[in-house]
Amino acid sequence: MKARVTVMLKNGVLDPQGEAVRHALGGLGFAGVNGVRQGKVIELDLAETDRARAETEVKAMCEKLLANTVIESYRVEIL
Amino acid sequence: MKARVTVMLKNGVLDPQGEAVRHALGGLGFAGVNGVRQGKVIELDLAETDRARAETEVKAMCEKLLANTVIESYRVEIL
Repeated sequence: MKARVTVMLKNGVLDPQGEAVRHALGGLGFAGVNGVRQGKVIELDLAETDRARAETEVKAMCEKLLANTVIESYRVEIL
Repeated sequence: MKARVTVMLKNGVLDPQGEAVRHALGGLGFAGVNGVRQGKVIELDLAETDRARAETEVKAMCEKLLANTVIESYRVEIL
Protein backbone atom coordinates (compact mmCIF):
# COMPACT_ATOMS: atom_id res chain seq x y z
CA MET A 1 0.00 0.00 0.00
CA LYS A 2 1.32 3.42 -0.93
CA ALA A 3 1.02 6.57 1.14
CA ARG A 4 1.93 10.16 0.42
CA VAL A 5 2.82 12.62 3.16
CA THR A 6 2.95 16.34 2.44
CA VAL A 7 4.77 18.47 5.00
CA MET A 8 4.49 22.26 4.82
CA LEU A 9 5.65 25.02 7.12
CA LYS A 10 2.69 26.38 9.06
CA ASN A 11 1.24 29.73 8.03
CA GLY A 12 3.14 32.53 9.68
CA VAL A 13 6.41 30.61 9.81
CA LEU A 14 9.00 32.32 7.63
CA ASP A 15 9.84 30.23 4.56
CA PRO A 16 13.20 31.39 3.17
CA GLN A 17 13.27 28.62 0.56
CA GLY A 18 9.91 29.72 -0.81
CA GLU A 19 11.03 33.36 -0.79
CA ALA A 20 14.16 32.42 -2.74
CA VAL A 21 12.05 30.64 -5.36
CA ARG A 22 9.71 33.63 -5.61
CA HIS A 23 12.65 35.96 -6.11
CA ALA A 24 14.22 33.69 -8.73
CA LEU A 25 10.92 33.43 -10.64
CA GLY A 26 10.71 37.23 -10.70
CA GLY A 27 14.26 37.39 -12.04
CA LEU A 28 13.32 34.98 -14.83
CA GLY A 29 10.48 37.26 -15.92
CA PHE A 30 7.54 35.47 -14.31
CA ALA A 31 5.44 38.35 -13.04
CA GLY A 32 2.32 37.93 -10.95
CA VAL A 33 3.67 35.42 -8.45
CA ASN A 34 2.32 36.72 -5.16
CA GLY A 35 3.69 34.07 -2.87
CA VAL A 36 5.56 30.79 -2.81
CA ARG A 37 5.72 28.19 -0.04
CA GLN A 38 7.95 25.20 -0.35
CA GLY A 39 7.48 21.94 1.50
CA LYS A 40 8.37 18.31 1.12
CA VAL A 41 6.53 15.27 -0.05
CA ILE A 42 7.40 11.77 1.11
CA GLU A 43 6.06 8.73 -0.72
CA LEU A 44 6.06 5.54 1.31
CA ASP A 45 5.65 1.99 0.08
CA LEU A 46 4.16 0.04 2.98
CA ALA A 47 3.77 -3.69 3.57
CA GLU A 48 0.53 -2.99 5.50
CA THR A 49 -2.57 -3.76 3.42
CA ASP A 50 -5.28 -2.41 5.73
CA ARG A 51 -6.12 1.18 4.85
CA ALA A 52 -7.01 2.38 8.35
CA ARG A 53 -4.01 0.73 9.99
CA ALA A 54 -1.70 2.15 7.32
CA GLU A 55 -3.05 5.66 7.96
CA THR A 56 -2.56 5.32 11.72
CA GLU A 57 0.99 4.07 11.20
CA VAL A 58 1.91 6.87 8.80
CA LYS A 59 0.49 9.50 11.18
CA ALA A 60 2.70 8.08 13.93
CA MET A 61 5.70 8.33 11.57
CA CYS A 62 4.86 11.99 10.93
CA GLU A 63 4.61 12.79 14.62
CA LYS A 64 7.86 11.02 15.45
CA LEU A 65 10.09 11.75 12.46
CA LEU A 66 8.71 13.19 9.25
CA ALA A 67 7.34 16.50 10.48
CA ASN A 68 8.40 18.97 13.15
CA THR A 69 4.90 19.64 14.43
CA VAL A 70 5.96 22.84 16.21
CA ILE A 71 6.47 24.62 12.90
CA GLU A 72 5.17 22.21 10.26
CA SER A 73 1.80 20.75 9.39
CA TYR A 74 1.38 17.46 7.57
CA ARG A 75 -1.24 15.75 5.45
CA VAL A 76 -1.47 12.01 4.90
CA GLU A 77 -3.03 10.45 1.79
CA ILE A 78 -3.36 6.70 1.37
CA LEU A 79 -3.19 5.96 -2.36
CA MET B 1 -5.27 31.36 -8.27
CA LYS B 2 -3.27 28.75 -6.42
CA ALA B 3 -1.13 26.06 -7.95
CA ARG B 4 0.72 23.14 -6.46
CA VAL B 5 3.80 21.64 -8.09
CA THR B 6 5.13 18.28 -6.94
CA VAL B 7 8.68 17.44 -7.99
CA MET B 8 9.99 13.90 -7.51
CA LEU B 9 13.18 12.18 -8.59
CA LYS B 10 12.47 9.92 -11.56
CA ASN B 11 12.29 6.18 -10.98
CA GLY B 12 15.73 4.68 -11.14
CA VAL B 13 17.46 7.81 -9.87
CA LEU B 14 19.07 7.12 -6.49
CA ASP B 15 17.30 8.98 -3.69
CA PRO B 16 19.65 9.19 -0.69
CA GLN B 17 17.23 11.40 1.26
CA GLY B 18 14.48 8.82 0.91
CA GLU B 19 16.87 6.04 1.88
CA ALA B 20 17.89 7.98 4.99
CA VAL B 21 14.23 8.37 5.97
CA ARG B 22 13.60 4.67 5.41
CA HIS B 23 16.57 3.77 7.57
CA ALA B 24 15.52 6.16 10.33
CA LEU B 25 11.96 4.77 10.30
CA GLY B 26 13.39 1.26 10.71
CA GLY B 27 15.48 2.46 13.64
CA LEU B 28 12.35 3.89 15.28
CA GLY B 29 10.64 0.52 15.09
CA PHE B 30 8.44 1.06 12.04
CA ALA B 31 8.69 -2.27 10.25
CA GLY B 32 7.21 -2.97 6.85
CA VAL B 33 8.39 0.15 5.05
CA ASN B 34 9.56 -1.21 1.71
CA GLY B 35 10.58 2.04 0.10
CA VAL B 36 10.65 5.78 0.60
CA ARG B 37 11.03 8.50 -2.04
CA GLN B 38 11.30 12.12 -1.01
CA GLY B 39 10.47 15.06 -3.22
CA LYS B 40 9.43 18.65 -2.90
CA VAL B 41 6.16 20.47 -3.16
CA ILE B 42 5.90 24.11 -4.15
CA GLU B 43 2.69 26.05 -3.60
CA LEU B 44 2.33 29.15 -5.74
CA ASP B 45 -0.10 32.01 -5.30
CA LEU B 46 -0.61 33.47 -8.77
CA ALA B 47 -2.20 36.71 -9.92
CA GLU B 48 -3.41 34.94 -13.10
CA THR B 49 -7.11 34.06 -12.94
CA ASP B 50 -7.46 31.98 -16.10
CA ARG B 51 -6.99 28.29 -15.33
CA ALA B 52 -5.44 27.25 -18.63
CA ARG B 53 -3.06 30.21 -18.77
CA ALA B 54 -2.03 29.60 -15.15
CA GLU B 55 -1.23 25.97 -15.94
CA THR B 56 0.85 26.93 -18.98
CA GLU B 57 2.75 29.49 -16.92
CA VAL B 58 3.45 27.07 -14.07
CA LYS B 59 4.68 24.42 -16.51
CA ALA B 60 7.11 26.96 -17.95
CA MET B 61 8.31 27.72 -14.39
CA CYS B 62 8.91 24.01 -13.83
CA GLU B 63 10.90 23.61 -17.03
CA LYS B 64 13.02 26.69 -16.33
CA LEU B 65 13.54 26.63 -12.58
CA LEU B 66 11.52 24.37 -10.33
CA ALA B 67 12.51 20.95 -11.67
CA ASN B 68 15.66 19.51 -13.14
CA THR B 69 13.94 17.58 -15.90
CA VAL B 70 16.97 15.36 -16.53
CA ILE B 71 16.48 13.58 -13.21
CA GLU B 72 13.17 14.88 -11.87
CA SER B 73 9.57 14.64 -12.98
CA TYR B 74 6.96 17.21 -12.00
CA ARG B 75 3.19 17.38 -11.68
CA VAL B 76 1.16 20.59 -11.77
CA GLU B 77 -2.21 20.95 -10.05
CA ILE B 78 -4.27 24.10 -10.31
CA LEU B 79 -6.31 24.40 -7.10
